Amino acid sequence: MIYNDTIVALATPSGAGAIAVIRISGADALTIANSVFVSHKAKELLKQKSHTLHLGHIMDGEKVLDQVLVSIFKGNHSYTGENTVEISCHGSTFIQQQIIQLLLRKGCRMANAGEFTLRSFLNGKMDLSQAEAVADLIASDNEASHQIAMQQMRGGFSNELLQLRQELLNFASLIELELDFAEEDVAFADRSEFEKLVGRIEFVLKRLIDSFAIGNVIKNGIPVAIVGEPNVGKSTLLNALLNEERAIVSEIAGTTRDTIEDELVIGGIGFRFIDTAGIRTTDDVIEGLGIKKTFEKMEQAQVVLLLVDGLKLKVSSFKFQVEIEKIRNKFTQKPIVIVINKVDLLSKTELETITEQLETLNLKLITISAKNKIGIDQLKETLLSFVNTGALRNNETIVTNTRHYDSLLKALEEIQKVRFGITTHLSSDLLAIDIKETLYHFGMITGEVTNDELLGNIFANFCIGK
Amino acid sequence: MIYNDTIVALATPSGAGAIAVIRISGADALTIANSVFVSHKAKELLKQKSHTLHLGHIMDGEKVLDQVLVSIFKGNHSYTGENTVEISCHGSTFIQQQIIQLLLRKGCRMANAGEFTLRSFLNGKMDLSQAEAVADLIASDNEASHQIAMQQMRGGFSNELLQLRQELLNFASLIELELDFAEEDVAFADRSEFEKLVGRIEFVLKRLIDSFAIGNVIKNGIPVAIVGEPNVGKSTLLNALLNEERAIVSEIAGTTRDTIEDELVIGGIGFRFIDTAGIRTTDDVIEGLGIKKTFEKMEQAQVVLLLVDGLKLKVSSFKFQVEIEKIRNKFTQKPIVIVINKVDLLSKTELETITEQLETLNLKLITISAKNKIGIDQLKETLLSFVNTGALRNNETIVTNTRHYDSLLKALEEIQKVRFGITTHLSSDLLAIDIKETLYHFGMITGEVTNDELLGNIFANFCIGK
Repeated sequence: MIYNDTIVALATPSGAGAIAVIRISGADALTIANSVFVSHKAKELLKQKSHTLHLGHIMDGEKVLDQVLVSIFKGNHSYTGENTVEISCHGSTFIQQQIIQLLLRKGCRMANAGEFTLRSFLNGKMDLSQAEAVADLIASDNEASHQIAMQQMRGGFSNELLQLRQELLNFASLIELELDFAEEDVAFADRSEFEKLVGRIEFVLKRLIDSFAIGNVIKNGIPVAIVGEPNVGKSTLLNALLNEERAIVSEIAGTTRDTIEDELVIGGIGFRFIDTAGIRTTDDVIEGLGIKKTFEKMEQAQVVLLLVDGLKLKVSSFKFQVEIEKIRNKFTQKPIVIVINKVDLLSKTELETITEQLETLNLKLITISAKNKIGIDQLKETLLSFVNTGALRNNETIVTNTRHYDSLLKALEEIQKVRFGITTHLSSDLLAIDIKETLYHFGMITGEVTNDELLGNIFANFCIGK
Repeated sequence: MIYNDTIVALATPSGAGAIAVIRISGADALTIANSVFVSHKAKELLKQKSHTLHLGHIMDGEKVLDQVLVSIFKGNHSYTGENTVEISCHGSTFIQQQIIQLLLRKGCRMANAGEFTLRSFLNGKMDLSQAEAVADLIASDNEASHQIAMQQMRGGFSNELLQLRQELLNFASLIELELDFAEEDVAFADRSEFEKLVGRIEFVLKRLIDSFAIGNVIKNGIPVAIVGEPNVGKSTLLNALLNEERAIVSEIAGTTRDTIEDELVIGGIGFRFIDTAGIRTTDDVIEGLGIKKTFEKMEQAQVVLLLVDGLKLKVSSFKFQVEIEKIRNKFTQKPIVIVINKVDLLSKTELETITEQLETLNLKLITISAKNKIGIDQLKETLLSFVNTGALRNNETIVTNTRHYDSLLKALEEIQKVRFGITTHLSSDLLAIDIKETLYHFGMITGEVTNDELLGNIFANFCIGK
């Protein structure tokens, strides 16, 4: 991979808007921009200071393409660490296209996905885990994923690893030194200090590895199956949940167009509701047709909400108890919540009788009225209770990336070998090998160790223009 | 309408992208931005120079929302003519929304459609026709509409009118002066000079009014009906035309998603192809079912392409001639082009015989092979020949806006009254009234004369954020 050419791409979302931003980066960025930019005030872009804005026209020969604002970032002070020019033009797709084509003719190359951030990484402006956080940040669509990506981008994650890596490196060099004096049998590296460091590393790695459980939930959301008879109020319940959570989103036009109908965010955590149909709990339906599919979907879910009609329970809750037992026996590992709907149509004594009967099942029990939005907050709290959000609340570093998770697991394995080596008084040369392996996996996360294939895979997931 | 508050809006297209730009304008723009922006280098945004860029973080209390670049434009040097701040953030819809909501809490108001440009107009940064050109520019999707909007935005149109208006104003004031000395019967305004000016104004107005025909075509495209039997090669022809013209567009991902299947740009002019179906020219079908609808569509078209299968003509062109005559008698005012397809399957003598026979119809005749892309350029030239692109080629000012067209017509009517008044030695006071009326209509175009309803109508067509 050679990165000394100048690249160009549209940096704003495609489509028409008030303005669009075209980004140019590379050694010739200023020269190329200067060749198409005409301004009364800023005659020579190359002579302008970094971090300044200039009004002028983009000219294709004699033809005026657009009146634009040009931003200049020089050398290491830019996002990429190279000369960068951002052209803020009118947001017509025709104009965007005309300007980009002109720049291509003038010697730019279309940027690949993520190439601006790749250059930023290669130029030492950020480490690999920070670069990955940029993509996560752009993809973030809720509080929690945004917070974690932001923290990772600011280095929260890699700073911790980098420091441990540095300490480990110091010990590694001392141990290497011992190898040079092998015949004299000296120990430059204080073994007890070293053991303490290894213990600390193990502790941090375990904490980070543990955080992946919540990290994964935050990144992918929690699948929740709502199971229930037709007309039990499933859609009304979803709407009751969605309406409140989406009110914020709808303030800005266009933001909701990409959201999925049955996904919603509670307390910063995404919940994906899995559509199930056809289950009829008050009849004996376990053997019924179509139930197999519903059960498959329940298997995919992490939580099952069993929605029941309070009015039908009033008639007979016994049949229902039998059903529940069957379902519970089938999904012994799965949290099941019984949600009794339409409680507004029950008298207080009726409700008490029902809940008393169902309490014998020893399952979580929530009474709601989806229509009148009674008990919705309680339901939300229950859903959230299945997620250990402690780490999130305490602002701890959370791992969300599978690649990082893999490297952390491998690093843990290696550092445990190191500890075993210290305990068993392993020779310095063998100890050095295990330390190197640990350092290798640390480096894989932050990007000290890398290769073209890895970089290719990571940056292919970026959007073009970033 | 009161415009002393500070407005905010997303200026880039909605959706996710590498970056998004949020624009703030108003007296408190810098203060509000400063209250949420933290940077090591630029501690106080208010103290920074205009047209500078600053890297930092948007903070919601203790919480970091994003790392952003902030652009500062002070007072009259901004687009709106007010203090303006542009926040370039990561292009996640979640982040866009969080930042805008934060700014709303800090005292901004969501901008209405076109409100930034409206403020630009109200602050004297551009006249009304220039403001309207901004919306046209953003909507422009081809060479010609882009060129005209660009010219209008740069003042090409209004400069001409403003100059004439000024000269007319000078004469008006001289004539008003005559009224003060009415008893002495003096003429300060040189009538022959005045007549020359009125003549010039009339000439310019007529030219602008005439340009509306092409302007309208450029803005709305030319409707073309392709009529022909099923399987005559209509779709192949469209593809042959489209493929070449769209190659440029497809270089940039995402630009083609909004284009309409059957619209294409030839020589900068948009042609809209109207789908017709069911016409069978070689049988007697004028009385047939479904033909009425095809004929309705042909009525809407400005040009009719009658596509015929060369192989069928070889068998009998006589029946076809009869059909053509019927169609021609029905659409006496409409240009009809006979396009003979599949000519690659005819021998030279066969083709000669056919064209000889059809030449007696005295209609434009083009031979093509849609499949092998023979004759496509000739067809394009023929389509273009129905558009008088002279004005476009000569870079003349072209009127595309119906509102301008109406005002120009009214101004012409009034200036003709003025000329008649001069010729008939109308008294100064009556002449002054006609001049005022002319000036009024001039002012309606450039915005010296305006009202809330007019402004409301104009800016309602803008996108939010511009």
